[in-house]
Amino acid sequence: MTLNLGVIGVGLIGQDHIRRITTVLSGARVAAVTDVDLDRASSVAGGLCGAAVHQTGQDLIADGDVDAVVVTSWGGTHEEYVLAAIGAGKQVFCEKPLATTREACDRIVDAEVVAGRRLVMVGFMRRFDRGYRAMKQTVARGDIGAPLLFHSAHRNPAVPSGVDTDGVIVDTCVHDIDIARWLLDAEVATVQAFAPRRSSHAAGHLQDPLVLMLEMTNGALTDVEAAVNIAYGYDIRGEIVAETGTVELAESSDVIVKRDGFYRGHVPGDWRERFVRAYDAELQQWIDAVSSGTSTGPSSWDGYAATVVSGAGLQAFHSGKRVEVAMREQPALYAKAEA
Amino acid sequence: MTLNLGVIGVGLIGQDHIRRITTVLSGARVAAVTDVDLDRASSVAGGLCGAAVHQTGQDLIADGDVDAVVVTSWGGTHEEYVLAAIGAGKQVFCEKPLATTREACDRIVDAEVVAGRRLVMVGFMRRFDRGYRAMKQTVARGDIGAPLLFHSAHRNPAVPSGVDTDGVIVDTCVHDIDIARWLLDAEVATVQAFAPRRSSHAAGHLQDPLVLMLEMTNGALTDVEAAVNIAYGYDIRGEIVAETGTVELAESSDVIVKRDGFYRGHVPGDWRERFVRAYDAELQQWIDAVSSGTSTGPSSWDGYAATVVSGAGLQAFHSGKRVEVAMREQPALYAKAEA
Amino acid sequence: MTLNLGVIGVGLIGQDHIRRITTVLSGARVAAVTDVDLDRASSVAGGLCGAAVHQTGQDLIADGDVDAVVVTSWGGTHEEYVLAAIGAGKQVFCEKPLATTREACDRIVDAEVVAGRRLVMVGFMRRFDRGYRAMKQTVARGDIGAPLLFHSAHRNPAVPSGVDTDGVIVDTCVHDIDIARWLLDAEVATVQAFAPRRSSHAAGHLQDPLVLMLEMTNGALTDVEAAVNIAYGYDIRGEIVAETGTVELAESSDVIVKRDGFYRGHVPGDWRERFVRAYDAELQQWIDAVSSGTSTGPSSWDGYAATVVSGAGLQAFHSGKRVEVAMREQPALYAKAEA
Amino acid sequence: MTLNLGVIGVGLIGQDHIRRITTVLSGARVAAVTDVDLDRASSVAGGLCGAAVHQTGQDLIADGDVDAVVVTSWGGTHEEYVLAAIGAGKQVFCEKPLATTREACDRIVDAEVVAGRRLVMVGFMRRFDRGYRAMKQTVARGDIGAPLLFHSAHRNPAVPSGVDTDGVIVDTCVHDIDIARWLLDAEVATVQAFAPRRSSHAAGHLQDPLVLMLEMTNGALTDVEAAVNIAYGYDIRGEIVAETGTVELAESSDVIVKRDGFYRGHVPGDWRERFVRAYDAELQQWIDAVSSGTSTGPSSWDGYAATVVSGAGLQAFHSGKRVEVAMREQPALYAKAEA
Repeated sequence: MTLNLGVIGVGLIGQDHIRRITTVLSGARVAAVTDVDLDRASSVAGGLCGAAVHQTGQDLIADGDVDAVVVTSWGGTHEEYVLAAIGAGKQVFCEKPLATTREACDRIVDAEVVAGRRLVMVGFMRRFDRGYRAMKQTVARGDIGAPLLFHSAHRNPAVPSGVDTDGVIVDTCVHDIDIARWLLDAEVATVQAFAPRRSSHAAGHLQDPLVLMLEMTNGALTDVEAAVNIAYGYDIRGEIVAETGTVELAESSDVIVKRDGFYRGHVPGDWRERFVRAYDAELQQWIDAVSSGTSTGPSSWDGYAATVVSGAGLQAFHSGKRVEVAMREQPALYAKAEA
Repeated sequence: MTLNLGVIGVGLIGQDHIRRITTVLSGARVAAVTDVDLDRASSVAGGLCGAAVHQTGQDLIADGDVDAVVVTSWGGTHEEYVLAAIGAGKQVFCEKPLATTREACDRIVDAEVVAGRRLVMVGFMRRFDRGYRAMKQTVARGDIGAPLLFHSAHRNPAVPSGVDTDGVIVDTCVHDIDIARWLLDAEVATVQAFAPRRSSHAAGHLQDPLVLMLEMTNGALTDVEAAVNIAYGYDIRGEIVAETGTVELAESSDVIVKRDGFYRGHVPGDWRERFVRAYDAELQQWIDAVSSGTSTGPSSWDGYAATVVSGAGLQAFHSGKRVEVAMREQPALYAKAEA
Repeated sequence: MTLNLGVIGVGLIGQDHIRRITTVLSGARVAAVTDVDLDRASSVAGGLCGAAVHQTGQDLIADGDVDAVVVTSWGGTHEEYVLAAIGAGKQVFCEKPLATTREACDRIVDAEVVAGRRLVMVGFMRRFDRGYRAMKQTVARGDIGAPLLFHSAHRNPAVPSGVDTDGVIVDTCVHDIDIARWLLDAEVATVQAFAPRRSSHAAGHLQDPLVLMLEMTNGALTDVEAAVNIAYGYDIRGEIVAETGTVELAESSDVIVKRDGFYRGHVPGDWRERFVRAYDAELQQWIDAVSSGTSTGPSSWDGYAATVVSGAGLQAFHSGKRVEVAMREQPALYAKAEA
Repeated sequence: MTLNLGVIGVGLIGQDHIRRITTVLSGARVAAVTDVDLDRASSVAGGLCGAAVHQTGQDLIADGDVDAVVVTSWGGTHEEYVLAAIGAGKQVFCEKPLATTREACDRIVDAEVVAGRRLVMVGFMRRFDRGYRAMKQTVARGDIGAPLLFHSAHRNPAVPSGVDTDGVIVDTCVHDIDIARWLLDAEVATVQAFAPRRSSHAAGHLQDPLVLMLEMTNGALTDVEAAVNIAYGYDIRGEIVAETGTVELAESSDVIVKRDGFYRGHVPGDWRERFVRAYDAELQQWIDAVSSGTSTGPSSWDGYAATVVSGAGLQAFHSGKRVEVAMREQPALYAKAEA
């Protein structure tokens, strides 16, 4: 049975997911699309085989031919579409962030709790990366003892000149925050921000690089380095230091070339190259779960936590102080970790 | 449009390709199957959605609902199915070997030449591996000058006790032979075999390890090491030595673990793990080509060459002499290298 | 001309330096020794060729046959011997720490300033390690832009049960503090300590691992991870993140072994193995400088800074607060960085 | 006790050994020198402390103040000096080759057998390289089973235009021949040469690259790749393939730099950089052995074998045939492998 998906928001990320569903993954097709720019929606639908175009996301969600919903619109609109999908009892894949405020995330969690089952998966694709999965498995197997520290570095070759420090925390570091929670199986208890010497390549007042220190509820410590104008490549580093050993992401070059006095390997050029397989695995796992009537992956709770912690990160950066993270009690619905 | 495929032979490899077509790749479905064991064919069809079961491969090829054919039966039967598919004007993907004798390969090449277009792709999946592709691109870009040597090592943790030296040459080294031809853009001119000290883990009279030395028509030299009881893993090594540099396959571990006095990375455990993505890319590229009415990948000519060269390898091993490879003239149809 | 050295303190480190001077390095010999345990001094002298035994360090320094002095006694005694050597106008190599209190270091700096020339080299051997030197050169060549962050990890397989957190800061982290100052060409401005989840292998109340965050006077940020019961090896990691690239210490294994599903390299087992060549280079450079009448290497100022900053580290750890490092003005004598 | 050495031949290599003895190693001094160019000998002696200049090598060997002899003159003169040293009962360190003909090597072996004890060490410095030593230890520990194959690659950035193929075999490949014998603990039984496509950077008629295939007396197989105009660096590769695992030389860069889309490590620029520590260890071990009245390192037998096998290599290259290596019976004096 092919799953009929409706896609809300067909900008770059939406189009990329449509390409993925159509030409890479199996078990699903795009049956309907919509966008704030209806011309763009029509244009995208034109390239698909029999996809309906809806005036609004609400219409798309209400469409009886749509089995499940993919939300790839602007972050500020996520809440209403996710709530509508929950209301319609349809599974929804929502790109991060789940919502832009903790209150909005609260409402989504509340709605899902009322629904009594998990209907939302949030697009934290790193959890589907082979490297991070191997890190988690290494710890889970007990090969290196309990994890005590997690060093995470998030390096971008460049960011558009409009990106400010808040954006780096909310859009960039949020991935490190989520993966730290997942790898260490703990929530974030406190956040502190450090503002080192700025790169001369950072535009405007952007604090680049930026370092966050996260104390986890189980005592483990995570440091997050964000360097978003580092030029040399898109380089995601991660290392867990545990009681009797460590595990770190390996370099990913397919070949080693020797020339001009050096041996060298390739560093990915952008996030697409680095995480293309993780995006594929993420959406395939969601399609498989929806097809079989189950839920999987990062939940609304993970989306809520990421928004709350990155909010604490903003406060920590602007105040210069260590900020305690105040989270609501976790509903029983989310008690079992998934994916 | 979904391509309707017919699969001839549903043993382990056939089933794996069916899984791939059904749950991993996009753009195709399995519409019909057959097997020398009809119960097995029925059983496999039962797990698919509306797949017909045919009594014979010929019936399957003749089925009007079958757009293209996948041949994954026993090697000795490849010729008749490939010839039938060519006769029916249908594209055919044939697992290696194209055929088990040079005469059979000759007949396939002749038939395709008569047909006037390429209808056959042979399953040399290494050409779709990211590592080998990067090696070829490195050379093609001129980064390291002209290639002069190619070191290829083919290491298996173990082989079934029934495997003999002829099997190692025909089934194992054939991959190294094909990839050498492709990477160096040349045919094999001579073959010599070396029989070093045998591993105590080699069963019966198996010559393990075995070394082949291939002189290419452009003068480049390829050495092939086959070690098929090496226990530690499935390790495929390749290095091109060129005029001013080298390029080699990198290790592929996703993480590095430090414990017990060592840092360490994972070596693949078997060919499935090592080449799973290459198999996916190979078959997807074939599906895409067939869907768009074009041809791609290793051709009948490549299948012919592999069979002729591995035949020379057998002769070299048994005679202890350097054997010249006598190949027919290449038909114009195959003049352009693909994939 | 062979330099005649006097060694004060012939415990393990003293004996190791004597072995080095006698059997590894060139240009010097051990002409005199002393120790708080005179029997031990006599015993050590007995294995040397014509080495005098002195009752006290002061006697040894006063010995006209002693050209220069090596101080490898207990840290609390360093001050008096270094001051005496300065008073005698003799060059002195002093193992770290220069002295155990900032006041003592102050007095040494004052004495050297009065002497009007550098007579003291402190044993921060990391500055002579090929890896750290290559890191510094990479930055100095401008290959990666200005340094912004320095990640330093100091991992010991185990420490004696008597070692407490103060000891880890003063004896272990002090190396990271010194190398950070040297690599980043800046002083430490503030120190903050983090106490993550403790390793179950840490004895008593030892805070292990421990993280220090150092803000440098040029804005660069250094994080120091000390993990002194990590079992898997003696692993010193260092990475500078600069504006357009990074440089990190490479693994140092001489060979890669493949077996049992892994490729693996060796991690050093202890500091001796890791830094043996740095110790050799350090002392040889000192001998060469003394022989040619010049000064080299880490100075009294570096010893002073290390003691002041590690003192701030203690305060930071015990108070849980960020501590500003208050340093005296740097005398002109130390204006030019060396070694 | 300082050992008084006499050095015969003070060209580049002789001067380098003199520097090593004088400023790096311990336990020896240069007491006398000579050279075919007496002005050069005087000039070199002038920079040393009390070194005599002798008219001839024979005079130097006869000098009662000379304890042991270092022969670093032109290869064609080695025989007479080594024989003279043996005649005088003095230990002699002779740079490779021991002698340029098998007959000359025969005479040296005969003389040593008559002397009844080992007096000669040949300068095959690779045996003192940490990497090769770790390879040998890995095999000796039984970590990977019995060795079956040895892949050896000898890559030079460039050679002077006067170097011909014979020179590559006799001066370059001879190192691979010796290390293969040592690592595999076997003699060479047959040699075959392969002449692949020539590098466009090879001058004149030089066959570059060149491949030798050596069958060892224990059945193990060694392939030697010599590529002496490869531009990118001085890169010595070695890998032993054994029954259940492999061991290979690791890359030796001190740091990894990331910039411009790559992570990269340094490849040595020349043999001095690559083997400087091996040369140091080699000569120090000889000095220590001589001082303690024992013998060590590669023997006259090893020198004899290297000359015989490289002679077979010449014959194999010029004839295009596989050549059997005919060696005399090994005298009992050399029965025990050393170093």
